Amino acid sequence: MLKLFYGKGACSRASHITLEEAGAQFEAIRMNLKDGEQRKPEYLALNPKGRVPTLVTDRGVLTETPAVLVYVAQTHPQANLLGPDDPFAFGQIQSFNSYLCSTVHVAHAHKQRGARWTDDPAALAALTANVPKTVAACFELIENEMFKGPWVMGDAFTICDPYLFTLAQWLESDSIDPKRFPKVYDHRNRMSERPAVQRAIAREEA
Amino acid sequence: MLKLFYGKGACSRASHITLEEAGAQFEAIRMNLKDGEQRKPEYLALNPKGRVPTLVTDRGVLTETPAVLVYVAQTHPQANLLGPDDPFAFGQIQSFNSYLCSTVHVAHAHKQRGARWTDDPAALAALTANVPKTVAACFELIENEMFKGPWVMGDAFTICDPYLFTLAQWLESDSIDPKRFPKVYDHRNRMSERPAVQRAIAREEA
Repeated sequence: MLKLFYGKGACSRASHITLEEAGAQFEAIRMNLKDGEQRKPEYLALNPKGRVPTLVTDRGVLTETPAVLVYVAQTHPQANLLGPDDPFAFGQIQSFNSYLCSTVHVAHAHKQRGARWTDDPAALAALTANVPKTVAACFELIENEMFKGPWVMGDAFTICDPYLFTLAQWLESDSIDPKRFPKVYDHRNRMSERPAVQRAIAREEA
Repeated sequence: MLKLFYGKGACSRASHITLEEAGAQFEAIRMNLKDGEQRKPEYLALNPKGRVPTLVTDRGVLTETPAVLVYVAQTHPQANLLGPDDPFAFGQIQSFNSYLCSTVHVAHAHKQRGARWTDDPAALAALTANVPKTVAACFELIENEMFKGPWVMGDAFTICDPYLFTLAQWLESDSIDPKRFPKVYDHRNRMSERPAVQRAIAREEA
């Protein structure tokens, strides 16, 4: 059975929701990120990066959200989480998710995870102060250029939706009013009503 | 015909090499990143992120290296750039490439692209100073935990190889001796001898 190692409210929520949307059989294992459980030797043996998500399969371990989402979708085809079976449509999904992992999540991480890039206290403070601006610029681009509606990729619900939802949940913590982005805000509200999303969040918050 | 917009020596080199490895018919269009050509309205109309790579296909535009690489591989199956046709093997490729885009490239970008996250001069200097340490930590993980050999994924040459090669070419510019990572260094040397790699680099340097 699949095992997902996640952190409460972390980016691993995208994988958690996708497993629920896929109807996958899986065990969810919470890592206490605040206490540094992800840097303990048992976990580093699974995922030497010391981050979440980690998906343990019967073939071995997969890490990184874009990889986990596609794997879950491809191994649960009946859930139809990739839209049309076509390289260009798949490329658009990959492009969107890659932007989330390499730009949006990274912009957000400069608030509490600035130590990844500097240990200078003044520099850390400067990075944190700038996060509302850089994260808002990302969401402006999503709102105005990328989001097709009603779902990220248009009519098809795909793995982009749980991922966008997960990062959009962080807006308030970055001092950004989500109502500045009406399509993203409406998407977030509609996502919150889905049973799969509610199951994942209830498990994380329990 | 496919059109690739690239910057000389930028991360778009991974897409450029992959197109050559795939035997694709394409036009390569150089953007002068130093002069800010990527922020001109004509280019922003194609790619509102104002970055490279941008791949223009007859279906529309794809951006983000991991997405472009998979698209080129899937649409040129005879080149066999994805290894075994299997979701777990594909997941490993995706995991590796996602690490390159979201962690390795981002670590490197704190040297010359720190303005993405702060405009404070002292903070920018602190970020730049730390780059040799953070980038080296990434390559240690690749060398010791991820690289299978002789290619990134083992016996199969895949889209991971041009991407790793492209980022490994930046080591010296980050004041890191590539010989600290013997597998990565040997891989870089073997990649440099491939005709497809030589064609892409010759075009970029011309």
